[in-house]
Amino acid sequence: MKKIISFGETMLRLTPPGNQRFAQATSLEIIIGGAESNVAVSLARFGMDAEWVSRLPENDMAERLLLELRKHGVGLRHVVRGGERVGIYFLENGASQRGSKVVYDRAHSSMATLQPGMIDWEAAFAGADWFHWSGITPAISQSAAEACREAIEVANRMGLTVSTDLNHRAALWKYGKQPKEVMPELTAGCDLIVGAAEDVRNYFGIVPEGDGEEAQRSMLAQLKNRFPRAKWVATTLRSNPNASQNGFSGLLWDGQQFCEAPSYPVTHIVDRVGTGDAFTAGLIFGLRSYPSDPQWALHFGVAAATLKHSIPGDMNLVSKAEVEALMAGNATGRVSR
Amino acid sequence: MKKIISFGETMLRLTPPGNQRFAQATSLEIIIGGAESNVAVSLARFGMDAEWVSRLPENDMAERLLLELRKHGVGLRHVVRGGERVGIYFLENGASQRGSKVVYDRAHSSMATLQPGMIDWEAAFAGADWFHWSGITPAISQSAAEACREAIEVANRMGLTVSTDLNHRAALWKYGKQPKEVMPELTAGCDLIVGAAEDVRNYFGIVPEGDGEEAQRSMLAQLKNRFPRAKWVATTLRSNPNASQNGFSGLLWDGQQFCEAPSYPVTHIVDRVGTGDAFTAGLIFGLRSYPSDPQWALHFGVAAATLKHSIPGDMNLVSKAEVEALMAGNATGRVSR
Amino acid sequence: MKKIISFGETMLRLTPPGNQRFAQATSLEIIIGGAESNVAVSLARFGMDAEWVSRLPENDMAERLLLELRKHGVGLRHVVRGGERVGIYFLENGASQRGSKVVYDRAHSSMATLQPGMIDWEAAFAGADWFHWSGITPAISQSAAEACREAIEVANRMGLTVSTDLNHRAALWKYGKQPKEVMPELTAGCDLIVGAAEDVRNYFGIVPEGDGEEAQRSMLAQLKNRFPRAKWVATTLRSNPNASQNGFSGLLWDGQQFCEAPSYPVTHIVDRVGTGDAFTAGLIFGLRSYPSDPQWALHFGVAAATLKHSIPGDMNLVSKAEVEALMAGNATGRVSR
Amino acid sequence: MKKIISFGETMLRLTPPGNQRFAQATSLEIIIGGAESNVAVSLARFGMDAEWVSRLPENDMAERLLLELRKHGVGLRHVVRGGERVGIYFLENGASQRGSKVVYDRAHSSMATLQPGMIDWEAAFAGADWFHWSGITPAISQSAAEACREAIEVANRMGLTVSTDLNHRAALWKYGKQPKEVMPELTAGCDLIVGAAEDVRNYFGIVPEGDGEEAQRSMLAQLKNRFPRAKWVATTLRSNPNASQNGFSGLLWDGQQFCEAPSYPVTHIVDRVGTGDAFTAGLIFGLRSYPSDPQWALHFGVAAATLKHSIPGDMNLVSKAEVEALMAGNATGRVSR
Amino acid sequence: MKKIISFGETMLRLTPPGNQRFAQATSLEIIIGGAESNVAVSLARFGMDAEWVSRLPENDMAERLLLELRKHGVGLRHVVRGGERVGIYFLENGASQRGSKVVYDRAHSSMATLQPGMIDWEAAFAGADWFHWSGITPAISQSAAEACREAIEVANRMGLTVSTDLNHRAALWKYGKQPKEVMPELTAGCDLIVGAAEDVRNYFGIVPEGDGEEAQRSMLAQLKNRFPRAKWVATTLRSNPNASQNGFSGLLWDGQQFCEAPSYPVTHIVDRVGTGDAFTAGLIFGLRSYPSDPQWALHFGVAAATLKHSIPGDMNLVSKAEVEALMAGNATGRVSR
Amino acid sequence: MKKIISFGETMLRLTPPGNQRFAQATSLEIIIGGAESNVAVSLARFGMDAEWVSRLPENDMAERLLLELRKHGVGLRHVVRGGERVGIYFLENGASQRGSKVVYDRAHSSMATLQPGMIDWEAAFAGADWFHWSGITPAISQSAAEACREAIEVANRMGLTVSTDLNHRAALWKYGKQPKEVMPELTAGCDLIVGAAEDVRNYFGIVPEGDGEEAQRSMLAQLKNRFPRAKWVATTLRSNPNASQNGFSGLLWDGQQFCEAPSYPVTHIVDRVGTGDAFTAGLIFGLRSYPSDPQWALHFGVAAATLKHSIPGDMNLVSKAEVEALMAGNATGRVSR
Repeated sequence: MKKIISFGETMLRLTPPGNQRFAQATSLEIIIGGAESNVAVSLARFGMDAEWVSRLPENDMAERLLLELRKHGVGLRHVVRGGERVGIYFLENGASQRGSKVVYDRAHSSMATLQPGMIDWEAAFAGADWFHWSGITPAISQSAAEACREAIEVANRMGLTVSTDLNHRAALWKYGKQPKEVMPELTAGCDLIVGAAEDVRNYFGIVPEGDGEEAQRSMLAQLKNRFPRAKWVATTLRSNPNASQNGFSGLLWDGQQFCEAPSYPVTHIVDRVGTGDAFTAGLIFGLRSYPSDPQWALHFGVAAATLKHSIPGDMNLVSKAEVEALMAGNATGRVSR
Repeated sequence: MKKIISFGETMLRLTPPGNQRFAQATSLEIIIGGAESNVAVSLARFGMDAEWVSRLPENDMAERLLLELRKHGVGLRHVVRGGERVGIYFLENGASQRGSKVVYDRAHSSMATLQPGMIDWEAAFAGADWFHWSGITPAISQSAAEACREAIEVANRMGLTVSTDLNHRAALWKYGKQPKEVMPELTAGCDLIVGAAEDVRNYFGIVPEGDGEEAQRSMLAQLKNRFPRAKWVATTLRSNPNASQNGFSGLLWDGQQFCEAPSYPVTHIVDRVGTGDAFTAGLIFGLRSYPSDPQWALHFGVAAATLKHSIPGDMNLVSKAEVEALMAGNATGRVSR
Repeated sequence: MKKIISFGETMLRLTPPGNQRFAQATSLEIIIGGAESNVAVSLARFGMDAEWVSRLPENDMAERLLLELRKHGVGLRHVVRGGERVGIYFLENGASQRGSKVVYDRAHSSMATLQPGMIDWEAAFAGADWFHWSGITPAISQSAAEACREAIEVANRMGLTVSTDLNHRAALWKYGKQPKEVMPELTAGCDLIVGAAEDVRNYFGIVPEGDGEEAQRSMLAQLKNRFPRAKWVATTLRSNPNASQNGFSGLLWDGQQFCEAPSYPVTHIVDRVGTGDAFTAGLIFGLRSYPSDPQWALHFGVAAATLKHSIPGDMNLVSKAEVEALMAGNATGRVSR
Repeated sequence: MKKIISFGETMLRLTPPGNQRFAQATSLEIIIGGAESNVAVSLARFGMDAEWVSRLPENDMAERLLLELRKHGVGLRHVVRGGERVGIYFLENGASQRGSKVVYDRAHSSMATLQPGMIDWEAAFAGADWFHWSGITPAISQSAAEACREAIEVANRMGLTVSTDLNHRAALWKYGKQPKEVMPELTAGCDLIVGAAEDVRNYFGIVPEGDGEEAQRSMLAQLKNRFPRAKWVATTLRSNPNASQNGFSGLLWDGQQFCEAPSYPVTHIVDRVGTGDAFTAGLIFGLRSYPSDPQWALHFGVAAATLKHSIPGDMNLVSKAEVEALMAGNATGRVSR
Repeated sequence: MKKIISFGETMLRLTPPGNQRFAQATSLEIIIGGAESNVAVSLARFGMDAEWVSRLPENDMAERLLLELRKHGVGLRHVVRGGERVGIYFLENGASQRGSKVVYDRAHSSMATLQPGMIDWEAAFAGADWFHWSGITPAISQSAAEACREAIEVANRMGLTVSTDLNHRAALWKYGKQPKEVMPELTAGCDLIVGAAEDVRNYFGIVPEGDGEEAQRSMLAQLKNRFPRAKWVATTLRSNPNASQNGFSGLLWDGQQFCEAPSYPVTHIVDRVGTGDAFTAGLIFGLRSYPSDPQWALHFGVAAATLKHSIPGDMNLVSKAEVEALMAGNATGRVSR
Repeated sequence: MKKIISFGETMLRLTPPGNQRFAQATSLEIIIGGAESNVAVSLARFGMDAEWVSRLPENDMAERLLLELRKHGVGLRHVVRGGERVGIYFLENGASQRGSKVVYDRAHSSMATLQPGMIDWEAAFAGADWFHWSGITPAISQSAAEACREAIEVANRMGLTVSTDLNHRAALWKYGKQPKEVMPELTAGCDLIVGAAEDVRNYFGIVPEGDGEEAQRSMLAQLKNRFPRAKWVATTLRSNPNASQNGFSGLLWDGQQFCEAPSYPVTHIVDRVGTGDAFTAGLIFGLRSYPSDPQWALHFGVAAATLKHSIPGDMNLVSKAEVEALMAGNATGRVSR
């Protein structure tokens, strides 16, 4: 099977141990995470040839980040070097009624100062048949948005399947443009769109009709109509009682049928960050492996994301066999000896 | 706004990591905590000018304790020095059916040997309009009880509003007097009384009529009748399935109306210690900020205490904005980016 | 009261901190655990004179293991030394839908190479009136199975009460024999049999009739019929939503009545390993203390095991008084000061 | 005694535990440090009224930094808020032949974007008689250099004693100016100049004559001649075998005599960062306390800095009494009980 | 061989990790230590039947302490229970010029309130031939001093060999008597006296003649003359450059010859506490094993104490074989595989 | 440049934190280490294309090990899978007079049961020009020795340069053969031999003449004479005061000249394990990079190994630039900012 290329910013995530607040932390755990490299790590662990493309400075923090991705088998040959700094985000883990909190320190990163032309997309895409990006990159800076457009254009021209996770981040988008001015054009080049109602409203002004799952179906149907190239549109479904427990499922529309998956009750969340990326990665894994069975792909994505809630850090360190065991109903939590 | 003075003993709390029992611990986390300084820390973080008055020895353990309170912005100018030792309490964290366990090692502390006259209450109360104490201080020793009476008398004379958290601790009260002999006189000088049914029965022999919330209303009504100076009487309401989960709410009676608050389901308790203090602090903050809106004050206290369950240690390290966000219904636990 | 002897393999359990997966661990916590020594530790902590018999090599890892058992008051005089290595098992803690996972590294251990005749059972059983073994030992190796048979024969001859926990481990039994060829003879010498439906089906081909608790009763009744020496047969009852929460109870059949116990909802599991051993130990404690009250014994076993879920490691570090407090209904999780 | 004001950038220092390299770190310890706030912390601990002036953003990382300085008693009333980020520096601890390594991530910090006029120096200096800055601030950015000049001018005008630590950092000075273009004017306003041969050569082109301590004397003499306002010029003397051991002393020239101090052999360095700041703080403490005894001041500075080598972090957490005990010859390392 | 009984107070030692000062600690490591139980642990590890006698309260902290001593094989049958609290001492680890610092919190401990008659010395000494105490016990309180005298009298009467480590602690002796009033009588009952010049001067007014080792010889000679029952008198010899490095040796006088041992250069001290106890234990081990070879005993004590400097905590966790290897010259520090 | 292949066993090294002894450890740090993979990691970090060949089981512990090597850029394509277990070694860190101690638990590992024919050496050596093995592999088992011989034969036939580190481990060699029966034949196929006097005496009966460095020269000369294929023979030179400090240098003989290097005084050893491998790797790097300058290669090896002493774990995580900086004389330990 050919390569899949993901593109985006990966950061040092620095997190106080346990449930400490920033005000009481005396140390920070180092996590390496970014929406797009999280997807690449998942795919590499599931056995696919996944490569991540980005821009990083020449310093020890960038090396630290690269070591972690290499460890999990992600290709790094087209990461370009330059710029000033690695992006950082500080995250404290919430519990019950207290949500987790992110303090971004990613401005002026090497990805934020990436310019179109810096990455040789023809070279990066050689031997690849799929390209994945997310809505975070165009939110970082004008030039990153342009580099993203460049990548999508080349991918379209070279015939790669293109996927995106819309991933709206309101705290970004500070460079003077609104998402509505940027995202429609980029999304138009995609074959798979993963997004939530909030993303779709902010980016495209799409307002779902009805309530609950009906609204989700309406949102997906409108989204697919709006972007005719998209073969599949999908979303996660979350019931959100609080920061420690969560029901997780998903929905996919391919123009023919609404694929559904079980809703898994995640009763004790270990780390919620990266669960959306785990869903997207599982979905992509399924659609690439069995393109004619989107139902299986959706279920694989939902089960993969369910397991991610139990794993510290951004990356979904599970195997294909573990995801399939959950899909087969093994959720009793017995000790596997 | 003027200062608020709290008075009481603060201890080193030494706690095994995670859910270890004492028998298996090889290290202990240092927490600084005491009912009254916990209240002062909350108020300082909410933006009030809060000062804590106590007695500590001249050693490095006392310095360690003071550093922690200074860090959170609590005034310390009237802490007197002398005596032999800092009180200690060892606490192991329970889970599910196993309750947390405290081993007190606070006898002979500098607060236990505090004598009336050691603290210059006129000086301490200068510039203050509120005085807060709790039922723990009169439980420690005869002389501490007398110093507490002295403080209340001066506060009453100087016109400060006086609040108390009744906080019955059966394991204290070893100096030969029963709570019933001491507490009624001290409580009589208070404008705000926070207490639970157990406290009120032990201290004042008050037996509520009815069951459930009706009993709580009966208890508060009798309490206010018994202490006519009290403008507000309040209690927390807890539904207590086990050591890891808990429903939390409160009730306040001002002689006119029973103010109620939502009951928040705390599904994953991080640290239960200090939640009562967080309630009292939130309530005081509300009553001082908006004396004519006890309903808001009660809700603020309940929401503050709910959040405290998610924070390690005795202190409620939340901001006013975070409490208000929960009051406004934001309990979904989404990551705040 | 006379001694109780337990016999089996105890290992180093090496566990990543918190919920880390093996792939992300940089350290491992050292736990000392084995089904039979876990029982001995429980009994020693409840005040009985408990001794553990096994075989260990002469090296620092064996010393480390022995130090831990000595610490908790278990007699070690008949542990024989020899062989190559201490058995190890690696365990990662699951959460929610992700079960805990064990990687065994116990082959070639000193217990696996134990030969009949190496342990002087007459000497070990002198002063004892009870012998406990489990189905793990015969699963390790042919020679360990033979040593186990030897022990049971001597125990029977010397008039000790013999108990077993069937403890089927499918990943063991690699030496060429099936459990069905080995276990019936060993079990026939037992006065107390603790086992689950899965054990009983694999070992003895017993298939329960009916569903739910009816099936459990059927299983116990058939088990007792099959092994007429057995005075008591018992099983745990678990409702298993996932790796973090669990309902726990048990059932005992003495040929006269089915003893039942409350089902305790363990909502936040800290460590599930050793809960079965805690049940067996509590049951043995009860049956030895009050042989005519199997109902109390069962309840004591269930309550002890319920508490074990809240304690890190394999050992049930609770006191008799704590178990009795839970039996008396104290499960509110209030801080005990 | 009046206040002393220090001014400069304080950062989060993030350090792998022990001697880990960045490449192997999975966590980072949080240290709060900056040359000028380190001086303020020392002075506050020695009992002086020390205040730190700087600029920080409005976020949780800035709060974390402020909590740490408040904890140690440093005044913070004139810290202004604004800008984007807190500066960070990553530091790994070397040993023996491997030096410690810093990766700066301080560009675009709130101090780097500080503009003249943002700080109300008249207000900050009210009640103060001493102002301390260092050569790091003018190295950060053009605007920070201008704000520094502004501060010195106001201090000179208001009659404060001004001290500087020249602190050359070659990795800074990226905004287009050379130190030689900026530092002479700023240094001219100082009454106390602390610097090393390297600083003085880079800033002022001063080349010492002779070798060893003779060269140091020559350097100080030239420095004082060049800056006639300076009443005292001083330098540390280090013999630098490697990252773990070090001889430490200092030299001071007041135009009359060369004051010398013992050379302390620091045989086991715990943390070298902040030792120069500890020297400067000790020297300032001495000169403010006993202006007519520069010999005592120098010795106090040298002894304080010697002790700093044994303390983790940037801050010199020692008392005046501990420094004086070392000055009196107590260096045997006996346990003080 | 018969039992050896040691008698004294053992405490929780609470120590910040690494070289942290109390002011920066957020956790404390739990060490169990006391001069006399340290001796018992050493002797048990060397293979002797050692028992420790003391008084402890009935709480979880006392249990924690007992678990640690039991773990290392020390007999505990005559520990009596009662009183209020376990003694605590806080210790921060120094480095280089900064000495380690102890904050005692041992007043009012169960040992401090021990009364003569509480311990049944006849029962404790049955089966024993050696009794060891130290100068710390008479320093704690009047009643502890009396209990100590009682023990020595019974030991003398029952014919046990009696040893003492003089161990002067100036911070104790607060109950109104001077060491000179108490120690001579107690020391008169001893067969082996271990002490330093400082102890001997404070207790007995003995002033050595000469310098260096000559003074040590003079001190020992006078000490033996003063206490004619003493068969052996011994002292450690330390060269004390600083808190991290140390030369260690010892000297013994039996009335016939001055036995000497090599001086071991301890270049990197891990934990200095308990090194004196390790010397005394090694010496006792040697004198009990080979009473006619005090030279070997001294060397064994010195080598054991040398190794103790490399071991965290109070206890000397080395084997006889390891001590003998050092005595045989194996100090190269090669990895033993 | 072509690939270099190293072959051997890599283990989990499990190490108590700091200087804890096994008896007191409650956790173990996971280090991945093996003489030959340590060499591969060094070479990969210096920029060479290094691949490691071995045999590992199919389990999570093997995955953990592979992740660590992949992280540092080592090729793993020819690692074969099979067998039962990953080898383990437990190591406690000594200090001063107490040497570090290893407890091996490597018997029955997948490498110990490796058979000739399992590895396709022609495939592994394709594209490679250098093969490295060590004397540990033939010590593990008869079949591993045979697989090693097989590898050397193929390497010789395919024209690769072959290097070995003799690495005598007396605790291995348990399968019935003496090193003298096995090692001569294997060593005969080598172009570079690194060994110490002890190895050479045990393997080949070579007895050096003279003392000190003269003996080392004699040893190397005899070694080269004995194995005429060897172009270079080299040894490390260590002066070994104790476990915490060490002088380090090396010596190389190419038949023409004795190349020497400076002796670096490592005053504070962080981790001594892997320093010999770091020397060998540095030497190989030098000889491959500049084959005509063995003097530079030796110095590079010595400087690399010197730095390794400062790095926790088995791997030498330094860059070529850092080694060259030390060679250029930069050993002052100044903070590099």
